[in-house]
Amino acid sequence: MAQPERDEDPGELPYRAHNIPKLGFENYWYPILTSGELKKKPKGVRLLGQDIVLYRDGGKLYALEDRCPHRGVKLSLGECAYKGTGTISCPYHGWTFDGATGKLVAAIMDGPEAPITRKVTIRHYPIRDFAGMIWLWPGSMEPSRLEDDVPEWIGDQGKFFSMPMYTDYKCNWRWLVDNWGNDQHAQYVHRKSPELFFQPMLPFNLTIEPKPLPNGKGMAFKRIGGVTSAEFPGLGTFPNKEWWRFMKPRGRGNVRGFENSKAHQVYGIPNQSEVWLPGLVLVGRLHGEYALVQWAVPIDENTTRCFNINNFRRLGLLTALFDRAHYYLWRGWAHDRIFSDQDKVLLEAVVPGPERLSKSDIGVIAWRKFMGGNARRPPSLQEAPRDVA
Amino acid sequence: MAQPERDEDPGELPYRAHNIPKLGFENYWYPILTSGELKKKPKGVRLLGQDIVLYRDGGKLYALEDRCPHRGVKLSLGECAYKGTGTISCPYHGWTFDGATGKLVAAIMDGPEAPITRKVTIRHYPIRDFAGMIWLWPGSMEPSRLEDDVPEWIGDQGKFFSMPMYTDYKCNWRWLVDNWGNDQHAQYVHRKSPELFFQPMLPFNLTIEPKPLPNGKGMAFKRIGGVTSAEFPGLGTFPNKEWWRFMKPRGRGNVRGFENSKAHQVYGIPNQSEVWLPGLVLVGRLHGEYALVQWAVPIDENTTRCFNINNFRRLGLLTALFDRAHYYLWRGWAHDRIFSDQDKVLLEAVVPGPERLSKSDIGVIAWRKFMGGNARRPPSLQEAPRDVA
Amino acid sequence: MAQPERDEDPGELPYRAHNIPKLGFENYWYPILTSGELKKKPKGVRLLGQDIVLYRDGGKLYALEDRCPHRGVKLSLGECAYKGTGTISCPYHGWTFDGATGKLVAAIMDGPEAPITRKVTIRHYPIRDFAGMIWLWPGSMEPSRLEDDVPEWIGDQGKFFSMPMYTDYKCNWRWLVDNWGNDQHAQYVHRKSPELFFQPMLPFNLTIEPKPLPNGKGMAFKRIGGVTSAEFPGLGTFPNKEWWRFMKPRGRGNVRGFENSKAHQVYGIPNQSEVWLPGLVLVGRLHGEYALVQWAVPIDENTTRCFNINNFRRLGLLTALFDRAHYYLWRGWAHDRIFSDQDKVLLEAVVPGPERLSKSDIGVIAWRKFMGGNARRPPSLQEAPRDVA
Repeated sequence: MAQPERDEDPGELPYRAHNIPKLGFENYWYPILTSGELKKKPKGVRLLGQDIVLYRDGGKLYALEDRCPHRGVKLSLGECAYKGTGTISCPYHGWTFDGATGKLVAAIMDGPEAPITRKVTIRHYPIRDFAGMIWLWPGSMEPSRLEDDVPEWIGDQGKFFSMPMYTDYKCNWRWLVDNWGNDQHAQYVHRKSPELFFQPMLPFNLTIEPKPLPNGKGMAFKRIGGVTSAEFPGLGTFPNKEWWRFMKPRGRGNVRGFENSKAHQVYGIPNQSEVWLPGLVLVGRLHGEYALVQWAVPIDENTTRCFNINNFRRLGLLTALFDRAHYYLWRGWAHDRIFSDQDKVLLEAVVPGPERLSKSDIGVIAWRKFMGGNARRPPSLQEAPRDVA
Repeated sequence: MAQPERDEDPGELPYRAHNIPKLGFENYWYPILTSGELKKKPKGVRLLGQDIVLYRDGGKLYALEDRCPHRGVKLSLGECAYKGTGTISCPYHGWTFDGATGKLVAAIMDGPEAPITRKVTIRHYPIRDFAGMIWLWPGSMEPSRLEDDVPEWIGDQGKFFSMPMYTDYKCNWRWLVDNWGNDQHAQYVHRKSPELFFQPMLPFNLTIEPKPLPNGKGMAFKRIGGVTSAEFPGLGTFPNKEWWRFMKPRGRGNVRGFENSKAHQVYGIPNQSEVWLPGLVLVGRLHGEYALVQWAVPIDENTTRCFNINNFRRLGLLTALFDRAHYYLWRGWAHDRIFSDQDKVLLEAVVPGPERLSKSDIGVIAWRKFMGGNARRPPSLQEAPRDVA
Repeated sequence: MAQPERDEDPGELPYRAHNIPKLGFENYWYPILTSGELKKKPKGVRLLGQDIVLYRDGGKLYALEDRCPHRGVKLSLGECAYKGTGTISCPYHGWTFDGATGKLVAAIMDGPEAPITRKVTIRHYPIRDFAGMIWLWPGSMEPSRLEDDVPEWIGDQGKFFSMPMYTDYKCNWRWLVDNWGNDQHAQYVHRKSPELFFQPMLPFNLTIEPKPLPNGKGMAFKRIGGVTSAEFPGLGTFPNKEWWRFMKPRGRGNVRGFENSKAHQVYGIPNQSEVWLPGLVLVGRLHGEYALVQWAVPIDENTTRCFNINNFRRLGLLTALFDRAHYYLWRGWAHDRIFSDQDKVLLEAVVPGPERLSKSDIGVIAWRKFMGGNARRPPSLQEAPRDVA
């Protein structure tokens, strides 16, 4: 009958009604590093507030709680002293744990017959090296199959290939996810980014119709109407007749419409953009040969690892070479750095507190409700959200 | 009947009895920047713990609460997108506020007919650009007339001109104000400062008689007696017969006396120094043609902006040129940097806790009582201080 | 009958049962600086969480509470204005305190007859300059004689000479002391340090028999058995047949045994290593002409000054010169820097929380019990530890 203490953090106000946890949804796979970052030495990471040590040994990956239960030292300062056995040894007295089970298999300083051996177990985490990223499952439920749990652009590496990078934001993960609910911030924030500079203006004042995906994993947003320019009485025009927008307001996004695109007609892609649990957005191109996934990975309450996963359709070696060159020479800079950093500056400047939501937040509200109501949770927690305001 | 929680901060001990608030008295004008610091771009400041965005547009100044109520981003990251309208636009979705009223006049991404427009209002603050400083009124009462609320040396810019600068101290504002209650620290702390180096010793062991000013805004202190040297049994002499004090102990301050000075007799200045609410000190010269105002501006609990406002009597162009040269070449360095920084080092090294006050603190005690008892407060708070110890 | 609040810090778990205080045992002498660090100017230090100002005057040392009770400024910013009187003067208004008694002997700005003089007293601390170190007694009991309270290697500077240095660790002092309870971490942590690199492997899997010292000040540990190599099923050998260990596993520590050593037989040293209250370890050499004392000096909850005091037997000028050269050229680097820093890295990476102790912790447990049960305490606190788990 213990009443859980109400979290008085004003940053909880927008999320309490939807039961969206401060530290993220536990029972999902999350990318945590790029594959190349985990080399021979063990590495400590934090995910959903949990400290975890990762290591490779004998061609396999292991993830354990990053604290030796003996005297408390971080295992990530230790080493894989017995190559090929899948174990890691604590640097303090050599307590050695099996990465596959978390079992203590030796307490070196106590000798081979140490009675404590096999009596101590620490938490081990499901871990994968997939699509150029190290993935962890921080939850207590049986892990899903990673390939089925992420968009096909990542999950099917036979058809696609992925180029990931990440940036750490000093803010809570939910502020990134709000940003992805078709709140039309992009039309405002990014209109002067290099990526959109010579593009026609993106339409705004859209009517957003959220629709759940058939697979139950997220939502798409149908965009209806919208304008690329408007006169605000007493103020002036938006956008402000920027001289450099010599291209007509067409092309990207709206004029021909996604329904007429190659992406939809040739490749059968159902939506131009989708948001998925546990907190990612998938944005495609009309040509259907590229899609970006941005993933908000909760590190701790005030840190979020924003993964930008660039996914390309495999169309032969030459195209792949061109795609990689295009990424390194243009998109990696123009989007993953400049464009994304425009969001970073704003999200890190959010002052937690109450909100006044408006028409452009319809997608945000729908997305919050969806997440809170549909997130995978252990049976004991699978109740409806407490109150949907 | 709710009992306000007693603040257990040991730094409150000296101030609780006099009801002097940790964050300063709200219903006063405060200088916050020099005029030149507020340029074309909006600027965020903090005053009495409140975050405020300041901006200039169409020759006017505006000050608003520095948080967009939509999704919480700081407005100070935004821009005045519609020049001449007195508005500022949030960088996230373009919510645009009227600086004069705080009203939301457009939510750009929602289009011109957005129903939320004019339904949302944020707090706006009275603001002035005066005497080379930007001034804010952080209180909830109707603002007073700035010119009437400050010493004439600042308020009457026809007769005087002001040269302000400031330094931020990492301590509570009350520690600066205590420093100005004629506690005779100057005679000790500053005796080796360049400004007083070749001066005769200032008298100490004075008897201080506090007297309220007729205008009810502060106090003056009558200084009686005092010595410029004393023998302490078992220790030695103070000051320590410093060889460089070849000037006789006369001149500054005491020998002829302020009553016989030009300041008093020609210019009719009533007191050589005065302290005023909400926390400033005015120190004149015997010649009556210069006065320094030092103002403790509370930024937050542990930060105080110490404004040094140098004020000169207008006596023609040539004198003004000389005054400015004198300030830039000597006084700006000797006083506003070196002399003031001697206080800064000590005030930042105060360990909060109980005090043992003595004879030299008579002025400090009187000044605390005066502030607590006479500060302008909304009618609901105009009770007597809780307990005058 | 007030129940002291239970400290919920998870780092208290291992120490609560033994009543070992977070901030250290108060009624002991502690080294705080090397003698050369306290020069003409007063110096502020922190010890057991207490801020203390130290100064030299007229050939004597003084230690006072580092806060002027007048208006709270740190006395360590002041000066000894009256040379030879043993006083220190506050930099703010010249309150002058006698270092020997803590009495206020003058309030300079109030003049020689100030009524407050001699009515105010601040805490003074017993202080010594001994064996190249400044020592403080932070407790409320009458101080013991320093020479009797420390190992003879430090206490008898006629027979020995000491070379001290220290490093500050960012962790609680108890984690250092645990490290000294013969927990056999050295065999693991330091086996690749330059100091032990070409040495034969130290034996591990010892059986530790703790025995209290006859003087009641600490314990020694009898080491029984042990191996220098072992095969761990499924893992491999420890140590890992390191090629550079060409010396046979003999010599240091175990083969001839301490009982047959010159230290024991010629010099009558009873134990090769001892741990003493309030938290130090003494480690000798078989030749009996050198011993290291490492002392965990609690600065505050999360900072510990680890003193390494190198002690040499006085055997004539030539040997002393050789000892000093050996220290500067080899041991100061190999042990006090490299070897000790291997511990520092681990101790600063301890995550506070519950422990799982094992066979190698028998010494640690005994040592904790001894400390909690035998520490010098004022009579009112000389109860048995609350619960010995």
